[in-house]
Amino acid sequence: MKKHNFSAGPSILPQEVLLKSSEAIMDYNGNGLSLIEISHRSKDFVDIMEKARALALELLGLEGKGYKALFLQGGASSQFLMVAMNLLEKRAGYLNTGAWSAKAIKEAQMLDDIYEVASSANANFNYIPKGFDIPSDYDYFHCTSNNTIFGTQIKDFPKTDIPMVCDMSSDIFSRVIDYSQFDIIYAGAQKNMGPAGTTLVVVKEDILGKVSRKIPSIMDYKKHIGAGSMFNTPPVFAVYTSMLTLDWLKSKGGVVGIEEENEKKARLMYSEIDLNPLFTGFAAKEDRSNMNATFNLTNENLKETFDSMLKEAGISAVNGHRSVGGYRASMYNALPLDSVKALVEVMSELESKA
Amino acid sequence: MKKHNFSAGPSILPQEVLLKSSEAIMDYNGNGLSLIEISHRSKDFVDIMEKARALALELLGLEGKGYKALFLQGGASSQFLMVAMNLLEKRAGYLNTGAWSAKAIKEAQMLDDIYEVASSANANFNYIPKGFDIPSDYDYFHCTSNNTIFGTQIKDFPKTDIPMVCDMSSDIFSRVIDYSQFDIIYAGAQKNMGPAGTTLVVVKEDILGKVSRKIPSIMDYKKHIGAGSMFNTPPVFAVYTSMLTLDWLKSKGGVVGIEEENEKKARLMYSEIDLNPLFTGFAAKEDRSNMNATFNLTNENLKETFDSMLKEAGISAVNGHRSVGGYRASMYNALPLDSVKALVEVMSELESKA
Repeated sequence: MKKHNFSAGPSILPQEVLLKSSEAIMDYNGNGLSLIEISHRSKDFVDIMEKARALALELLGLEGKGYKALFLQGGASSQFLMVAMNLLEKRAGYLNTGAWSAKAIKEAQMLDDIYEVASSANANFNYIPKGFDIPSDYDYFHCTSNNTIFGTQIKDFPKTDIPMVCDMSSDIFSRVIDYSQFDIIYAGAQKNMGPAGTTLVVVKEDILGKVSRKIPSIMDYKKHIGAGSMFNTPPVFAVYTSMLTLDWLKSKGGVVGIEEENEKKARLMYSEIDLNPLFTGFAAKEDRSNMNATFNLTNENLKETFDSMLKEAGISAVNGHRSVGGYRASMYNALPLDSVKALVEVMSELESKA
Repeated sequence: MKKHNFSAGPSILPQEVLLKSSEAIMDYNGNGLSLIEISHRSKDFVDIMEKARALALELLGLEGKGYKALFLQGGASSQFLMVAMNLLEKRAGYLNTGAWSAKAIKEAQMLDDIYEVASSANANFNYIPKGFDIPSDYDYFHCTSNNTIFGTQIKDFPKTDIPMVCDMSSDIFSRVIDYSQFDIIYAGAQKNMGPAGTTLVVVKEDILGKVSRKIPSIMDYKKHIGAGSMFNTPPVFAVYTSMLTLDWLKSKGGVVGIEEENEKKARLMYSEIDLNPLFTGFAAKEDRSNMNATFNLTNENLKETFDSMLKEAGISAVNGHRSVGGYRASMYNALPLDSVKALVEVMSELESKA
């Protein structure tokens, strides 16, 4: 029986995507060969790559606006370095909203001067700093839109004239925002877009080519753009499965359609956290993430009972990250409302038992 | 009907590997979740990663000899940079045996001084240079064991006291050699080991930590080793499928067992190339690759006939690389002898027709 999968990433994918992707491993397109044993230069795969790139721009509303989409390897962790390599000439400003922001800062600092414009480290990152200044002579500003570990999410992005770079690994394609306010968006696929193994990078072309450093080829966005996202052999399976997931999202009404479902799921989840006296939310209310709800038991003695009830109900992967503790329900695009209903039911059943 | 798949990479994988890998997409280990939607920190996946790492060392005969195996992202193209970042202090020596060696040289040159110890560029890389000197005060020596595009293969590796680094992307696990003569071996998975999307790096730990440069985390072998090859989310599907392929290789008698089959296939292929007057081999005989046989028609007018006969026989992906032309039969570990027989039969049928 299929479980209710609240995994924070790699995470749930639509069942129909899994089915198509599984079939392609045995035979792709009826051509007598597996998807993973054909050349990445074959028409079959080039079509997949081009469709994935086009779908990404279309779903973000960035078609015809000077952006290119790339499916690279190496995860957000590689982007921490690539962003700085491609954009950092003198100094950049970073917003520190948690573990992943901090890593982005650390890697960029190896290359040049980084200024932390604001940080919520003083409260274990349970909120999003607001009202900070972004100096207009910096090379770029970097932020993390959603903090998977802490369950916070930036609702209003700051206004600035310098290039804005955003790590959207855990909430890309989940909500309607003006994606054209960003110059680089990057996201590991394994949360809202596909399996682990590829990273979407959306780059506004005209911000490139302005640094004096020699950029190694594999780190150079221009090289990847020039090669149509095939500078070297791409991660075929991860790109194909991401393409299927983006296609599924389009069929659900795109970002507009999925946002409505995501809001329903988040409302249900947070109202249970707020109304049930046995639970308390971790993140500041106004900064709560619609993707990752973090919460704790008010009485730790109930942990064993709650955990066994969760297990019985087929609810999987709701344990919190070690730096926050408690529980975390990750409600990515592919998670059905019914899974949230099942979790909320167990929470309310615990209340009636206690 | 399954084709005879001579693709140069991504390339043929064992049918039983494809089957298991396809099943794992729907449900892994009967646990009600897909392999690609569980956490990479789950016991299920950690076990897969550890088994893959152990199998790699076991099959190369490197267990207990101070080596660690890593499954990274980014392909050989990333290793061109990482090798130099981790080992290059003053100067390194590179053997240039073709397009991939040249790329490795280009990337390393961005960091520091590189000396080409020898090159076969003068004959479009149709042979392996021999008898060159490797200065003993260099940081390391780098070579490419097998040249996929040109169909050459190093049979005897030079002796040197400095660290030896080898790009084995297209012939790792295919033949019995003393793998402990190398200090770093790297290989993109998509030829002899698995699908595109992961790169095996085998590192002798005691050569690390000797350069003065600050190494970005994602480029630092030490960081990856310290994190058990999970510094960031690994490419789950590619690692799993590689593990299955290595397990399949072990069941075939390991490198010793597969070498015997690979030699049979190569002997059959090259004897047809040599005996059939309609074909001529591209690579120097003593340097011929057992993995990629490159050959041309002696009479280009027969191309159309030959191509349609190949298609009829279900023979796929034998077109040569544009920089060599003609044909290329890639005979990686998973290619059955029967596929080579089918190709040779078509070649000999062409002779009887012509």
